[in-house]
Amino acid sequence: MTERTDVTKALAEWIVTCDLDRIPEKTQKEGIRTFVNWFGCAIGGANHETVDRALAGVDVFSGERTSTVIGRKEKLDALHAALLNGISSHVLDYDDTHLKTIIHPAGPVASAILAVAERQPVTGEALLNALIVGVEVECRIGNAVYPHHYDRGWHITGTTGVMGAAAAVGRLLSLNTQQMTWALGIAATQSSGFREMFGTMTKSFHPGRAAQNGAVAAYMAKADYDSSERAIEAPRGFANVMSEKQDYNEILGGLGETWEAALNSYKPFACGIVIHPTIDGCIQLSEELGEDVQNIERVDLIAHPLVLELTGKPEPKTGLEGKFSVFHSAACALVHRDGSPTAFTDEMVNAPDLVDLRRRVHVKTDPSCHEAAVSITATFKDGREVTKQIERAIGSFEKPLSNEQLNTKFVDQAALVVGQRQAEDLLTRAWAFAEMDDVGALAKASVPQS
Amino acid sequence: MTERTDVTKALAEWIVTCDLDRIPEKTQKEGIRTFVNWFGCAIGGANHETVDRALAGVDVFSGERTSTVIGRKEKLDALHAALLNGISSHVLDYDDTHLKTIIHPAGPVASAILAVAERQPVTGEALLNALIVGVEVECRIGNAVYPHHYDRGWHITGTTGVMGAAAAVGRLLSLNTQQMTWALGIAATQSSGFREMFGTMTKSFHPGRAAQNGAVAAYMAKADYDSSERAIEAPRGFANVMSEKQDYNEILGGLGETWEAALNSYKPFACGIVIHPTIDGCIQLSEELGEDVQNIERVDLIAHPLVLELTGKPEPKTGLEGKFSVFHSAACALVHRDGSPTAFTDEMVNAPDLVDLRRRVHVKTDPSCHEAAVSITATFKDGREVTKQIERAIGSFEKPLSNEQLNTKFVDQAALVVGQRQAEDLLTRAWAFAEMDDVGALAKASVPQS
Repeated sequence: MTERTDVTKALAEWIVTCDLDRIPEKTQKEGIRTFVNWFGCAIGGANHETVDRALAGVDVFSGERTSTVIGRKEKLDALHAALLNGISSHVLDYDDTHLKTIIHPAGPVASAILAVAERQPVTGEALLNALIVGVEVECRIGNAVYPHHYDRGWHITGTTGVMGAAAAVGRLLSLNTQQMTWALGIAATQSSGFREMFGTMTKSFHPGRAAQNGAVAAYMAKADYDSSERAIEAPRGFANVMSEKQDYNEILGGLGETWEAALNSYKPFACGIVIHPTIDGCIQLSEELGEDVQNIERVDLIAHPLVLELTGKPEPKTGLEGKFSVFHSAACALVHRDGSPTAFTDEMVNAPDLVDLRRRVHVKTDPSCHEAAVSITATFKDGREVTKQIERAIGSFEKPLSNEQLNTKFVDQAALVVGQRQAEDLLTRAWAFAEMDDVGALAKASVPQS
Repeated sequence: MTERTDVTKALAEWIVTCDLDRIPEKTQKEGIRTFVNWFGCAIGGANHETVDRALAGVDVFSGERTSTVIGRKEKLDALHAALLNGISSHVLDYDDTHLKTIIHPAGPVASAILAVAERQPVTGEALLNALIVGVEVECRIGNAVYPHHYDRGWHITGTTGVMGAAAAVGRLLSLNTQQMTWALGIAATQSSGFREMFGTMTKSFHPGRAAQNGAVAAYMAKADYDSSERAIEAPRGFANVMSEKQDYNEILGGLGETWEAALNSYKPFACGIVIHPTIDGCIQLSEELGEDVQNIERVDLIAHPLVLELTGKPEPKTGLEGKFSVFHSAACALVHRDGSPTAFTDEMVNAPDLVDLRRRVHVKTDPSCHEAAVSITATFKDGREVTKQIERAIGSFEKPLSNEQLNTKFVDQAALVVGQRQAEDLLTRAWAFAEMDDVGALAKASVPQS
């Protein structure tokens, strides 16, 4: 199907017609879980220095302050709120993952539409509808170009997220098919974000900017600002310029029948998904060993090559860099049984006992090792060895987080920002968002009360 | 030098230290011509429907309305004004060209800094300084990846312009070297824009968005939002992800000694630079033939292959598409001796006599033909043939526009928007911009008085 000449138009046609009654209940349920997880992450990241600095940078340019910076007292215009909420929801590397592509789908999409829902009335159902359609769009476009696109160095969450955000905001603006086609074009031509930025504040800028830029694309298309009608598939369009793989069947095949949005997963740990098996295994090992953990001489991991490629920082200096260090993550999981945001503070990353242990963690890569698996061998000072095999880490497709685990994750991180009581209240309200007449009120409810 | 690991940092160091007294007089003079040409184009494009629609799309999101939409009565915050002015200065395809890379350098840079100069006091000298540094940065980065980067489908004005804009705005914000390095990184990771958009409103969106996004990068870096320090040269940074050619010597070699900013050129015709030889030749031919033009049976061009690749639209329907049709351009130059914005209106493109003639224009490409040359043969109904050879078109590096020709170009297009008298006044003021204490006043002077 690589010769198709109407991919963008056909996708736009589907976006404008895919109402909620065409979305299966299972996909809708996953959409609600996607939203709850994203909302918790946006609150959890709200006080991060990255968010402070972004706000300091752009605040003077805000238009009418209709929209909440989630988990904070500041308000911004909807476009800037989309940027900030996209940053905060991603900054702890704790958000959702479409495992086939490593896209973090909610950041670009949910950040855009909830901000827009504060400047015009949007029902919870319309928001859920837009969220699922937006996630479906970005993940399908991602499937069409993954893995080459990602391997070339593109941060796929940003590059595809901008089109997901345009689709979702476009639905809230009731774009017609022509306008939606243009919106996808204006979004596609903003597709950007390098993996080089991993480990810096600019990584979270990508989903934030994708949310903001996708929204801009939708608003401009609403004003009939035109664009190519073949932005995705044209010889000099998205798929050909940014990837050597183009499989348009991944975009249009089974559209509305099979759902990528139903495959979303949620991280139990606040770091890159590829370290999850290591953290899961090290926590289990630590629980089994008890105080004997102190006697570990060295740790040997056998893992998928992506683990070192993405998270191979041997000497992280900041919390943010720690998220990209399998060595720190293993040490912290062994000593503190922690993979939550508290495991990735500057203090924790520089704690002498962890620095000492992480230098004794060694990684051997094996392409035959599944990305969600790891083998961990601890060797003790007396020569003993203990090995822990993780076949599929918690949070993987085969071992998804339960709703109860999502609740714990939500409250644990949100309570650090808004307090336990408000966090629990927000969790209850988040689960019921689709029943709200005016879902923008949920964003406003996230403003810290004390 | 491809192994250099400090390209971005070294460039940032140069940007922050390159004060006006380090810039040769010749380069400063070309900087002034660059500004005058850009300002005329921004005024000339101000009433275009593309600008109307962009404004309709984003106006509700404007922050404090400090900055002028050049040539119009509306004001916007500096970031949105940068977007709009970048669009209007490019929409007529009449702006400047760095011929080595086909970058249109002023759009992203000047649009950003003049908008910023209305929200903080900036002297004309500081603006000239920032303009030249920004243009130098984008053109040098362009040289490092051209032609592969462009051939892959990237609209190089947008992809490199965002870094030029960040550098220029960064100077106005007095970023230190560390912040300037981050600004280049935040800008680089927004590098985007497909050539697929040529012939649509979204083409002009690219320089506009580059101006706006580069400015955002500078403001965020000023707030210490950090980024990679190797955004340009890292394995997953700009040059490697977006091109197969990376020649960092083009960026750092002779920096501050040889000047790309001194090589800028200005279009005599309001369309893609590759059609210029054809229009130049057809106008000359028409002047020589007089009324005999009516007896032309067919026209045969021999031109560089880029002519058909970039401007091969056989049946343009809109003025915008006409700019990408060598057939329409040749017909209009022969019949009306016109390559100015009036040659590219919807009416002109659909005029029956021109449609009839353009269908009798034939193009043969020859890779050995220089990009600034063309051979035009007119065959008459009676079998006669006349051939016109253009070795180097007007506006090429070898035949630059004189200051007088720039004046004519400025007034001709600006008068259509602000009237003859205000156009002439603005021209006089534009030539003297570098002497102004508060150069933002020049933008304000472009508001139509009647």
